[in-house]
Amino acid sequence: MRRTGYGAIEMQSVDRVRVLDCGIIANKPDLSHSECLRRLYGGMEELVKSFQPDCVAMEEAFYGKNVKTSMILSMARGAIIAAFAGMGIPVYTYSPRKAKLAAVGNGNATKTQVATMMAARFAIDIKMIPDDATDALALALCHGQIAVVPSLTAMLPKPV
Amino acid sequence: MRRTGYGAIEMQSVDRVRVLDCGIIANKPDLSHSECLRRLYGGMEELVKSFQPDCVAMEEAFYGKNVKTSMILSMARGAIIAAFAGMGIPVYTYSPRKAKLAAVGNGNATKTQVATMMAARFAIDIKMIPDDATDALALALCHGQIAVVPSLTAMLPKPV
Repeated sequence: MRRTGYGAIEMQSVDRVRVLDCGIIANKPDLSHSECLRRLYGGMEELVKSFQPDCVAMEEAFYGKNVKTSMILSMARGAIIAAFAGMGIPVYTYSPRKAKLAAVGNGNATKTQVATMMAARFAIDIKMIPDDATDALALALCHGQIAVVPSLTAMLPKPV
Repeated sequence: MRRTGYGAIEMQSVDRVRVLDCGIIANKPDLSHSECLRRLYGGMEELVKSFQPDCVAMEEAFYGKNVKTSMILSMARGAIIAAFAGMGIPVYTYSPRKAKLAAVGNGNATKTQVATMMAARFAIDIKMIPDDATDALALALCHGQIAVVPSLTAMLPKPV
């Protein structure tokens, strides 16, 4: 199962932040690439319609050892970025390490540690956060913590 | 300049085939990935609106030595395939070698040889074919030659 996690947060200040939704888009392994990409593109459109985000934070591309896997992941990234670009929403990317460091204070935090911290930070039940959505919430928080403070906005990376 | 070639052909039989259009979508090197992907997705939508194709033939993904380049190309492929998938149009992929072999009779033909053959085959002026559109026409012809003959359709690859 290929899973794409997402998290939508609303952030008024570093201390005023809440989760609007989090979840995953799951694509069964027997689906064609076309169908997976269509579902990802359409899924992003639906999320944007639901939550009208100002911006999107996404995991940086990484150069895996397995070229074939990296290329399939890149295709998914291409469809997802095209969807946001088509709706005029800027996409910022961060390495998982940077996102965890910003969101949890530890760049090498495990998935469980990130989930525990996200649940505490957002005051939600940890069971509410699907496995693959924890990283998405950490990425959102990482970006939000910079974007929400006017004096820090110069530190924002260039959107992709 | 990143260039994506395309060619639209109409094929009634192996001998009755004509070029409706061919060209390139050019993205200046200073454009962001987002903007390039948006232009590719939108470009495919426009081509489909113009020519209402039954199907699309595309170059197979190749595993280049440069992983970064392969990943950027894969992002473009992801956006393009998502566009066609969103419009319900099947995408078939062929290696450049296979496309040249089918279209020109020589899997190792140079770009100029392919262009010369395409111009002759379609009875158009070779100057009408932009450099990066020759491979697109060869791919279209390669797919068309199989798809148009009922007894050969079992030989079609599975759409991606």
